[in-house]
Amino acid sequence: MTKVFVLNGPNLNLLGDREPEVYGHTTLEEIEQMCREAASSAGAEIDFRQTNDEGTFIDWLHEARRDADAVVLNPAAFTHHSYAVAEAVSALDVPVIEVHLSNIYSREEWRRKSVVSPVASAVVAGLGARGYTLAVVAACEMAEGKG
Amino acid sequence: MTKVFVLNGPNLNLLGDREPEVYGHTTLEEIEQMCREAASSAGAEIDFRQTNDEGTFIDWLHEARRDADAVVLNPAAFTHHSYAVAEAVSALDVPVIEVHLSNIYSREEWRRKSVVSPVASAVVAGLGARGYTLAVVAACEMAEGKG
Amino acid sequence: MTKVFVLNGPNLNLLGDREPEVYGHTTLEEIEQMCREAASSAGAEIDFRQTNDEGTFIDWLHEARRDADAVVLNPAAFTHHSYAVAEAVSALDVPVIEVHLSNIYSREEWRRKSVVSPVASAVVAGLGARGYTLAVVAACEMAEGKG
Amino acid sequence: MTKVFVLNGPNLNLLGDREPEVYGHTTLEEIEQMCREAASSAGAEIDFRQTNDEGTFIDWLHEARRDADAVVLNPAAFTHHSYAVAEAVSALDVPVIEVHLSNIYSREEWRRKSVVSPVASAVVAGLGARGYTLAVVAACEMAEGKG
Amino acid sequence: MTKVFVLNGPNLNLLGDREPEVYGHTTLEEIEQMCREAASSAGAEIDFRQTNDEGTFIDWLHEARRDADAVVLNPAAFTHHSYAVAEAVSALDVPVIEVHLSNIYSREEWRRKSVVSPVASAVVAGLGARGYTLAVVAACEMAEGKG
Amino acid sequence: MTKVFVLNGPNLNLLGDREPEVYGHTTLEEIEQMCREAASSAGAEIDFRQTNDEGTFIDWLHEARRDADAVVLNPAAFTHHSYAVAEAVSALDVPVIEVHLSNIYSREEWRRKSVVSPVASAVVAGLGARGYTLAVVAACEMAEGKG
Amino acid sequence: MTKVFVLNGPNLNLLGDREPEVYGHTTLEEIEQMCREAASSAGAEIDFRQTNDEGTFIDWLHEARRDADAVVLNPAAFTHHSYAVAEAVSALDVPVIEVHLSNIYSREEWRRKSVVSPVASAVVAGLGARGYTLAVVAACEMAEGKG
Amino acid sequence: MTKVFVLNGPNLNLLGDREPEVYGHTTLEEIEQMCREAASSAGAEIDFRQTNDEGTFIDWLHEARRDADAVVLNPAAFTHHSYAVAEAVSALDVPVIEVHLSNIYSREEWRRKSVVSPVASAVVAGLGARGYTLAVVAACEMAEGKG
Amino acid sequence: MTKVFVLNGPNLNLLGDREPEVYGHTTLEEIEQMCREAASSAGAEIDFRQTNDEGTFIDWLHEARRDADAVVLNPAAFTHHSYAVAEAVSALDVPVIEVHLSNIYSREEWRRKSVVSPVASAVVAGLGARGYTLAVVAACEMAEGKG
Amino acid sequence: MTKVFVLNGPNLNLLGDREPEVYGHTTLEEIEQMCREAASSAGAEIDFRQTNDEGTFIDWLHEARRDADAVVLNPAAFTHHSYAVAEAVSALDVPVIEVHLSNIYSREEWRRKSVVSPVASAVVAGLGARGYTLAVVAACEMAEGKG
Amino acid sequence: MTKVFVLNGPNLNLLGDREPEVYGHTTLEEIEQMCREAASSAGAEIDFRQTNDEGTFIDWLHEARRDADAVVLNPAAFTHHSYAVAEAVSALDVPVIEVHLSNIYSREEWRRKSVVSPVASAVVAGLGARGYTLAVVAACEMAEGKG
Amino acid sequence: MTKVFVLNGPNLNLLGDREPEVYGHTTLEEIEQMCREAASSAGAEIDFRQTNDEGTFIDWLHEARRDADAVVLNPAAFTHHSYAVAEAVSALDVPVIEVHLSNIYSREEWRRKSVVSPVASAVVAGLGARGYTLAVVAACEMAEGKG
Repeated sequence: MTKVFVLNGPNLNLLGDREPEVYGHTTLEEIEQMCREAASSAGAEIDFRQTNDEGTFIDWLHEARRDADAVVLNPAAFTHHSYAVAEAVSALDVPVIEVHLSNIYSREEWRRKSVVSPVASAVVAGLGARGYTLAVVAACEMAEGKG
Repeated sequence: MTKVFVLNGPNLNLLGDREPEVYGHTTLEEIEQMCREAASSAGAEIDFRQTNDEGTFIDWLHEARRDADAVVLNPAAFTHHSYAVAEAVSALDVPVIEVHLSNIYSREEWRRKSVVSPVASAVVAGLGARGYTLAVVAACEMAEGKG
Repeated sequence: MTKVFVLNGPNLNLLGDREPEVYGHTTLEEIEQMCREAASSAGAEIDFRQTNDEGTFIDWLHEARRDADAVVLNPAAFTHHSYAVAEAVSALDVPVIEVHLSNIYSREEWRRKSVVSPVASAVVAGLGARGYTLAVVAACEMAEGKG
Repeated sequence: MTKVFVLNGPNLNLLGDREPEVYGHTTLEEIEQMCREAASSAGAEIDFRQTNDEGTFIDWLHEARRDADAVVLNPAAFTHHSYAVAEAVSALDVPVIEVHLSNIYSREEWRRKSVVSPVASAVVAGLGARGYTLAVVAACEMAEGKG
Repeated sequence: MTKVFVLNGPNLNLLGDREPEVYGHTTLEEIEQMCREAASSAGAEIDFRQTNDEGTFIDWLHEARRDADAVVLNPAAFTHHSYAVAEAVSALDVPVIEVHLSNIYSREEWRRKSVVSPVASAVVAGLGARGYTLAVVAACEMAEGKG
Repeated sequence: MTKVFVLNGPNLNLLGDREPEVYGHTTLEEIEQMCREAASSAGAEIDFRQTNDEGTFIDWLHEARRDADAVVLNPAAFTHHSYAVAEAVSALDVPVIEVHLSNIYSREEWRRKSVVSPVASAVVAGLGARGYTLAVVAACEMAEGKG
Repeated sequence: MTKVFVLNGPNLNLLGDREPEVYGHTTLEEIEQMCREAASSAGAEIDFRQTNDEGTFIDWLHEARRDADAVVLNPAAFTHHSYAVAEAVSALDVPVIEVHLSNIYSREEWRRKSVVSPVASAVVAGLGARGYTLAVVAACEMAEGKG
Repeated sequence: MTKVFVLNGPNLNLLGDREPEVYGHTTLEEIEQMCREAASSAGAEIDFRQTNDEGTFIDWLHEARRDADAVVLNPAAFTHHSYAVAEAVSALDVPVIEVHLSNIYSREEWRRKSVVSPVASAVVAGLGARGYTLAVVAACEMAEGKG
Repeated sequence: MTKVFVLNGPNLNLLGDREPEVYGHTTLEEIEQMCREAASSAGAEIDFRQTNDEGTFIDWLHEARRDADAVVLNPAAFTHHSYAVAEAVSALDVPVIEVHLSNIYSREEWRRKSVVSPVASAVVAGLGARGYTLAVVAACEMAEGKG
Repeated sequence: MTKVFVLNGPNLNLLGDREPEVYGHTTLEEIEQMCREAASSAGAEIDFRQTNDEGTFIDWLHEARRDADAVVLNPAAFTHHSYAVAEAVSALDVPVIEVHLSNIYSREEWRRKSVVSPVASAVVAGLGARGYTLAVVAACEMAEGKG
Repeated sequence: MTKVFVLNGPNLNLLGDREPEVYGHTTLEEIEQMCREAASSAGAEIDFRQTNDEGTFIDWLHEARRDADAVVLNPAAFTHHSYAVAEAVSALDVPVIEVHLSNIYSREEWRRKSVVSPVASAVVAGLGARGYTLAVVAACEMAEGKG
Repeated sequence: MTKVFVLNGPNLNLLGDREPEVYGHTTLEEIEQMCREAASSAGAEIDFRQTNDEGTFIDWLHEARRDADAVVLNPAAFTHHSYAVAEAVSALDVPVIEVHLSNIYSREEWRRKSVVSPVASAVVAGLGARGYTLAVVAACEMAEGKG
């Protein structure tokens, strides 16, 4: 069965509570549930995690080298400067889709640059929670060699 | 019935033929067909167009103000410098999803900057032709106030 | 009789409707009427046009070389990057006044730079529709060698 | 009766004498006379001053908070670096029109940037002495809520 | 009783030992004692911590959302690039005062920029250990709505 | 008795009136009174002044070389570009604390850079009027060699 | 018979008339005649066109994919910012020589950068009308695999 | 006996497996063995570690203050932005040699800048695994005051 | 008799006292005396002044238009940003020599840029007090048309 | 008889051997022969030289002031930074054509800037060895006042 | 027998005498002796040279194409701008190790950039004279295909 | 007897002939004669040289370490990029005065930056040939410890 890792970076545990005018009222638990259902419909399963710790995030990406068929990740604030995360992404052979809840390109200058995007397979930004489920579905299809 | 404009910018008429190692072998006609089916499944219809002319592209965006419930657009080379296109996008009240076939963030420096993204609702890049169909589906849902 | 071309660039056909908090509620048709009256009082006549197409805009500037005694132009989004428009302006021997409805210098960074200004005779910005009529009057006087 | 302050910055007392090929042969006294007549026609009166001293210039702007219905100012060299002047302008509630005799945008790089423009209501450049009178008229109308 | 978190970032455990010509001979334990006394005088209590780990630092800031009435933080090297810390600070609703022992603005270029300052309430730099106690007192007053 | 100069730069005479949402409703006279009391408690006295004139501000700093034991200064708009003020500060041998009412690091880009900070002893920003009194107290202590 | 497209961008229809001190007195018609003769001598024929419209220019480049053995182009003001033209050039498999009448590298900063040059085969600048004929001859030879 | 810490940053645990065309087929275990032998020949011993976690890496550097006579470190992706690591290196009194397997100066722009190099004693890059052994030997000699 | 104005900018009244390791122990009074003697030998006379006030400095430059045959000026901190001073210098028809006691080009970055130099006749830096006397002599010769 | 100097800069003696995929297999001797024949056909003669030494290259350019009717030069690596060469070129009164074998504008960033181009008469790049012969012919014609 | 060229750039003949606090007291003759011994131990021989002349330095690199099995070079001041040297290095097929006595990355900004490093095999900096011997040994091993 | 080296860089042998509107009609031979007389009056002698070759220029600076009491140098085009020359200047213990005939600060951007100035003792620019004689006199005095 196709296995998709969905990895979330720092401060995303506050979703639904922090700056709801930007990030919406959906909590990370609700997004996890949505992803689980989307994966299930696609005949896949997900492993959904969140951490505030860069080292842990990298360890998970290394783990994905062995155990995942595709990765959906929202690196949050790691997006903009963590070359350590970028290199761990770059070491993956499976499809990797970078997701952002908000349209980062319409926000502060520093948010517009991602050091992860150049080594990701694809980028989805500004679709809110829906962006996660679309990414999970696309990741499954890419992992299965469809299209 | 929900109406989605799918607007394509310069040189996209060459798809399938030009730089297939970057853009794939799918032609614009095939993408149009895929979008039509995706819209149909979602109970919507699309108006799919391509032009090499900036003025025409802007006219279409103005037309969308009256006639479209959502817009999916691939501004191609207009992406990077056309503030005229960006302003026309900005004048739309409906959801606008910017799509790029390739992951523009992993390419030349000048491709990484989009003057359209700050005024779009969302951005999808690097998912190939699949990005169009996902964007059409998402645009329909957004137009219908789902999610 | 002194003939003044008043040329308007992309998206200005949306005036009165688009972002009224920035551009006001006056439509382009109303501005045309105001200009016509101002010219009439000054014993001059105007040729007032708008296009979203750069090529057409340039053709009009070439036409002005033969047929106009002065030019008032609002290049809108062409202002910031169109060297093609700037060169066509530069090829004019008559007075050229660049007009902007809003104070472009108090807006986004990219709006503050005009590639047209260095080759225009004068610049008026932030006076709203009144800026057009003042420019028409000044252009007439300059064309007639007054002041 | 509408009262307009017309404030002039450093070196403008040399007008007519210094670099006449750029600034023309009209003296500041002559410009004052032209402004006085223009204001008079508009049923307004002006208070016309010049100083080379930044502190004095700021004091006058503070004075305008109490005593003026509109301000026309040519900050001259203060234009490009004086945030102190810019802040004093920003503290005004009345219309403020920034005037430059020459087209500053076609001159040296440093002249093209104004720290005052972002906080002015409008900008007029390149119309020579005529720019002052147009600005006085427009300032009167704006102060009286016309247009 | 007002509760103030005093959070210290990487390498501050070496205080008193490392580069005393810059950071002085006071140890972090001594600073903690000084803060405790200052808080006590103000009828408040502090929770004083240090870590070299970014993830831990962020977890503490999240904890402060529930348990603290104000935060005093010295992000040390996180100051200059950690948007993850900055976002966690930004998610706080209580007063946040950023403290630096040395005057960071008189040191190397990279030390002069703080990504935390834009989301802090206030910044105190260059007052040495005294800066901590002043910040604790000010934080208490701000938390209690005084001034 | 310890003597502290408290020097204020341009536009600060408008405090309480200008942009109260940024600077608060406290007037400069009230701040002076607060500083006087703080100094009195610390067994010191202050000399509190304001000017819009850079030359006068520099003269006062020179005067402080002879007559002051410490200086608290809010250079306001001089902060960002006046190397003349910075050099006069640099010529002082007594403690110098730079104070800003607002958190300048969370405002416009140009406000974030201070040419005075590199030559000041310490910087306090964003604490409002309280920042002045804390600075006066700290300045007294530093002048008396405490801490 | 070898077929060479010679494509000219905006404002070149003014040649001989506009800024003759820079561009010379030769008209575009005369250059066309020179190119026709040079091609004829080389046993080739040319298709010589000019437009002020970017979309048309791109259409011609697409047409050249089918109908031309080589392309000589003077993109004029499109040179400096039109990635749409650059991409259309990049989609050509035949030799492409970029020609500029004047030495663009000795002129204004913005003229020195060409977004077309990186995807052209060769660049000739500063040889005036002669540059066109040399380019036509070289293009013929390259198309025929000579040298 | 001379003790050398050999500390490795994020993703280096993947050596031999990840991007072997850049980093070679040697694993980190093999490099550890080579270092152990080189140290042994030099009459020294090594403590060889790897972590993906910045906080842990800093803790080890603090530990080296007490327990090591020299440090050889490959900060990997921490190299380019971690001022926290740089400050911990700067707090060391023993020789510190920064090693990179590849020639980082011939790779992407961001890899060419190291925030650690300015506070290291020396830098060795591009010698592959051999760079580690040379660094260990040199570090031993420097620790023993030879040369 | 040739008349040379020697004008000194802000903080130069502190010469001999402030940063003697950079500026030496010679006071401004002593420099005045040296200049007076040098001028006397050259059959000229000097008018030597100092001010901390930019407006006054500009007034003196205007006065020099009438009363001086040459100007030697040390703009001190005005050097680096005062376009108002630069324009007043530019309005002079007589030789103007800019003098700096220290070699400003070997000091901080901001000291290396002079906005006055482009409009001065000549620049002398790093010769200490001797630079003044050489400049006075050269100014006399230039004023008298020698060499 | 028209005399053309053809001057070649550093490393061009390796042509045909070094990076043939960029520079081709033609040797400098073969290019010399091609130039000699082209000149001969045009009734001119050439003086063809190569050096790795900047001083020698400049001496030759000075010699060309006396002895050459035109200069064709390939400054190779001097192109990008040697203002000394640029000034020597600038001192020539005869036509100067700068030639590059490869299209330098499609290569590394540093190759795209030439300090020589602004003072050359014309630039030819990307035509391989053919570029030399075209340049020789054009140089002859220009020297003889044809076209 | 393996032959290693050790090439030294400008001003290195002054070693031991010039700025000993940066470069140490070892002379270039002593370094040559150390290299000779290191090579001898490795069963290799060296050819050790120094020049202040760029052209000569390039000639030696060309000579190394024929006669050397490896090159160790300290380009000194050529490091930072000489693309001519960089291209000559790039034309070598043998291992090339760039050596700097001091840690150039901890010095002035301009010293931190090397145009040679991107085309060298490896870089060693900050190990003083020892860096030369390590580089010679490593170069021998690389030339002999060890490791 | 005091010995002053007067060293001239590339293209200065063309003085009097090349761009006389910038550099004047005085030849280098005449400047040499003026310097000889100035030195003679000061009881000193000069060694006056010119070269187009960087290596030779550096050799002369090394020679000056032994044989000169002061150096006056006009590095001409070496001024702007030759760190090799700058380092050789930096290795001198005697006074070094950098001279430029024209005011380099009022010319092209690249001429305004000197890599030599930071290591020279003083700079004189814009005084024409007179600058040489003033520099020789000042150099003598400095060498003799006067002033």
